[in-house]
Amino acid sequence: MSLKRILIGSPIETVREKHERLSKSTGLAIFSSDALSSVAYATEEILLALVVAGTALIDYSMVIAVGIAILIAIVSTSYFQTIHAYPSGGGAYIVAKDNLGTNAGLVAGAALLIDYVLTVAVSITAGVAALSSAIPSIYNHKVLISLVAIALLMIGNLRGVREAGKIFSIPTFIFIISMFVLISVGAARYFSGDPAPEPQVLEATSSYFALFVVLKAFASGCTALTGIEAVSNGIRAFKAPEPRNASVTLIWMAAILGSMFIGITFLTDHYNILPMENETVLSQLTAAIFSRGPFYYVVQFATAFILILAANTSFADFPRLSSVMAADGFMPRQFGSRGDRLVFSNGILILGLLAMSLVVVFKGQTHALIPLYAVGVFLSFTLSQSGMVRHWLRLKGKGWQKGIVINGTGAITTFVVLIVIASAKFLHGAWIVIIAIPVIVYLTKKVKRHYDSVADQLSLTGRKVQVEYTHHSVIVPVSGAHQAVVNAIRYAKALSEDAVAVYVCFDPMETTRVKQKWNTHGMGVPLIVLESEYRSVIEPLMDYIDGVRETHRGGVITVVLPEFVPTRWWQHLLHNQTAWMIKGILLFKRGVVSTSVPLHLDDK
Amino acid sequence: MSLKRILIGSPIETVREKHERLSKSTGLAIFSSDALSSVAYATEEILLALVVAGTALIDYSMVIAVGIAILIAIVSTSYFQTIHAYPSGGGAYIVAKDNLGTNAGLVAGAALLIDYVLTVAVSITAGVAALSSAIPSIYNHKVLISLVAIALLMIGNLRGVREAGKIFSIPTFIFIISMFVLISVGAARYFSGDPAPEPQVLEATSSYFALFVVLKAFASGCTALTGIEAVSNGIRAFKAPEPRNASVTLIWMAAILGSMFIGITFLTDHYNILPMENETVLSQLTAAIFSRGPFYYVVQFATAFILILAANTSFADFPRLSSVMAADGFMPRQFGSRGDRLVFSNGILILGLLAMSLVVVFKGQTHALIPLYAVGVFLSFTLSQSGMVRHWLRLKGKGWQKGIVINGTGAITTFVVLIVIASAKFLHGAWIVIIAIPVIVYLTKKVKRHYDSVADQLSLTGRKVQVEYTHHSVIVPVSGAHQAVVNAIRYAKALSEDAVAVYVCFDPMETTRVKQKWNTHGMGVPLIVLESEYRSVIEPLMDYIDGVRETHRGGVITVVLPEFVPTRWWQHLLHNQTAWMIKGILLFKRGVVSTSVPLHLDDK
Repeated sequence: MSLKRILIGSPIETVREKHERLSKSTGLAIFSSDALSSVAYATEEILLALVVAGTALIDYSMVIAVGIAILIAIVSTSYFQTIHAYPSGGGAYIVAKDNLGTNAGLVAGAALLIDYVLTVAVSITAGVAALSSAIPSIYNHKVLISLVAIALLMIGNLRGVREAGKIFSIPTFIFIISMFVLISVGAARYFSGDPAPEPQVLEATSSYFALFVVLKAFASGCTALTGIEAVSNGIRAFKAPEPRNASVTLIWMAAILGSMFIGITFLTDHYNILPMENETVLSQLTAAIFSRGPFYYVVQFATAFILILAANTSFADFPRLSSVMAADGFMPRQFGSRGDRLVFSNGILILGLLAMSLVVVFKGQTHALIPLYAVGVFLSFTLSQSGMVRHWLRLKGKGWQKGIVINGTGAITTFVVLIVIASAKFLHGAWIVIIAIPVIVYLTKKVKRHYDSVADQLSLTGRKVQVEYTHHSVIVPVSGAHQAVVNAIRYAKALSEDAVAVYVCFDPMETTRVKQKWNTHGMGVPLIVLESEYRSVIEPLMDYIDGVRETHRGGVITVVLPEFVPTRWWQHLLHNQTAWMIKGILLFKRGVVSTSVPLHLDDK
Repeated sequence: MSLKRILIGSPIETVREKHERLSKSTGLAIFSSDALSSVAYATEEILLALVVAGTALIDYSMVIAVGIAILIAIVSTSYFQTIHAYPSGGGAYIVAKDNLGTNAGLVAGAALLIDYVLTVAVSITAGVAALSSAIPSIYNHKVLISLVAIALLMIGNLRGVREAGKIFSIPTFIFIISMFVLISVGAARYFSGDPAPEPQVLEATSSYFALFVVLKAFASGCTALTGIEAVSNGIRAFKAPEPRNASVTLIWMAAILGSMFIGITFLTDHYNILPMENETVLSQLTAAIFSRGPFYYVVQFATAFILILAANTSFADFPRLSSVMAADGFMPRQFGSRGDRLVFSNGILILGLLAMSLVVVFKGQTHALIPLYAVGVFLSFTLSQSGMVRHWLRLKGKGWQKGIVINGTGAITTFVVLIVIASAKFLHGAWIVIIAIPVIVYLTKKVKRHYDSVADQLSLTGRKVQVEYTHHSVIVPVSGAHQAVVNAIRYAKALSEDAVAVYVCFDPMETTRVKQKWNTHGMGVPLIVLESEYRSVIEPLMDYIDGVRETHRGGVITVVLPEFVPTRWWQHLLHNQTAWMIKGILLFKRGVVSTSVPLHLDDK
């Protein structure tokens, strides 16, 4: 308990919950970290896919980057529509559920939950890669550092870090500025005819099919789009008029993202940079333009920082989405309850633990996690945009025809990209997500069915008022005559006039001794002795209870069990667990309630 | 439950317990498997220790074997005395505890328990090595095969295999006969001048100190003495006159063991056999004398079989010793209770699991386990023989002077050997046992102290008869108005006139709804509404309970909690665990008893 207090602080009163509203620039900083930070790895992922063909196809990186920039334009235009149609927040789960039905909503929800976990894992490992490019000695500890970073994010979010929103915007601005400085200086040197280093020539490691390599590279580069939906989820955080401010922010974000991504890919191509195992492409590029001076370190640390912020956004999104799904009955109720610090603690914990597992399983390598990443993202894009098409068709509000064209284009484009990603990356890990999504959908529906069934069984509507029990029998199974038994007997007498003690006899001599003590200490409660042939107390006792139940139909039986409460946990192991077994069996006997009367042992 | 029945059979009535008595020859077969089976690996362990010096010291194996044979003679003469002094069974725990005090007894007990675990692990891995020498293809699966063998022994012993005693004597006799055939034929060929294969010449892998190498080899060979005390533990299993029959059996066993061990070591030396990784020395020797014909396979299978029997003896000894120690209060009570099949099930399970862990940790290699083995054995020998010296000094019975000389010699010899083994093998693994023994002794004393303290607190001697409680208040914390709450209220009314429901309010509108339903379904039980500032039900509820406790001193409080009993285990996870938290806290509040009223949910 006290460790918990040190880590997450003391409880916060409910009335202290407040909603701060964000300006466009703060909103940009807060909601864009996820999207913008992906330029730290997207170009590298394209190159990693292309180098399987040696350097033969490496120049396609620019073509792919332009294609992805167009995709960014299409998707953000599409989300621009969503923002105006769902001014109270249009996450894929809600849009899909509202317009395409529960199943589509659950698929989108499952895709998003997976996506949030991967955002944490990918961003943190990429952030650690940025750091270890600058400080090579930490490279071998990248898994450990990633785990510590996730743990710190967990603790920070369990404390509730939302008030720090404005401080969080600083690293994002530093990142944006430093990227544009990098691109501008690089471009200036390019146009002034500065010669690039000689290109390396690599041979292909095996035969390949060029179109497929390019498609795979495209699929890898699509991770640049992750996080682009963040603004449309968080509309309500903006100052009024919310939809307008949010949509302007979205357009700014898309423009910054697209230009940074194209700029970096162009310079990477120009400087003939190829991916290396222990230094990121962005680190190589910065070093090529600025050499390893102070600005180089600014870029690396700003990159690491914005990636950590990107991971942090999931710590808001995952718990929020799971609380919404819990409120709908699709996730365990615990995800819907706020902890001491007004945050959805269970969602934060689960997200952190899942992301940590991914980091361990994939050995802290961003590249190994990427194939899992984009599938969920584009699946939720597709469902969300299709939902918007359905929305326009259904409501036929102002500008619905334009809406259909824009969201239809978005839906078709993201669906085609989804198919490309799922097939190009299937064997590299996308299969895990493709299996996980239906499994999660199945589980959410199972949870919902259970809650519905319970609600039905608990409902008092149309039920008759209960009648009182006609009789109350109290049975105290005793293992001998000692203080714990006397306590139980004393309690049993307070419950009912009809209290008896039951003793199962193994050894006639011992039984005689127990009977003698009973005369003195039994408080007048009758002692019933049962015989056992198999050294088991359970069977004769259950037979006896069944007999009492038959005799007093319409009554209720309480079985009072003495329980030792030792001072140390291991001392529990030193006592026979018979009482627990009896309680376990009685749990399923209708009309019988079991009670433990604790005897608190001192540690002498 | 039904899996348990298939594996271990149906329960056995207490009255069916019987004691079969053994003749000398059956007794020999049953009690000697542990001791005799060690010739399967003892010679090999001596050679493995000597080859660190290349082949330079290899001929010392015979000297060492003769030394160990003398040791066998001393120790068995010493135990001969013990048998006559403790005709009801003189295990080291009892002899040391009786004569040297509790601490010495516990040290001996800890040493023996460790020893039994190692007997299982060493015998099984050595048995699998015998099999894999004959069938090389199973060598890579030796860990798995060892684990399966231990599991089968566990299941067999949980069923109770004692009635199979006589069948078990057959493989022992086959082993003894085949060993003597092997030695006789080998000796005949030696004396007829049959030439041995050329000796290999191995260089030492590093510099060495010859005396230390020989001492290490001696320490390794001392594993031949393991199990020699078995007869003295099992005297009561013999036909009358028990001590005479047991002691004659002991002498026979020692003679057979000594001659087999010297014979095999001699022939191994003559045939210039060196240890190999995947074939045992005994397998090589048999192949050298008989080539790989039918007799070779008889020897290998008989060896494997007697080793399994040796492991099986621990499955009788470990549970018996732990039940004796449990009866004295030094081990958890559960070790003292017989299961359905009249065996000490918990001891069998723990022994099996510990031995399995050792096999896994030491990768199924006999050689790696040996350094742990002999320390415990010789520690218990030393304590047992020292105890006998004290016994003679104390009682001064018939022949006490002779007894002192014999047991004194035994005690001093085994003590010297213990020091040799502990120092020569310290770094190879003996340290584990040297640390484990005091830890186990500490734990046993802690257990004993707890039981003594509990017995003291439970004792009714000199206690006043309890008075009845003056009042019984029943409090039902409710989370709303639904069927589970109504059940709890109905039960609460059966307990006491003074029953109230307590509702913690988070949301005034919800509270109004609950109050309305309460008017219809509340069965006249008053509903008390408490306010909470921190979204916690626990604190306001506990404050309320404390208030009631203050008002009714001398009374008792029952807190009735509604509990869902779902049909599937995972459904438990879908409900708030508030009830469990309340119960956990109430467990430590004196004068308060908590009860769960189950509502059985259907699976719809």
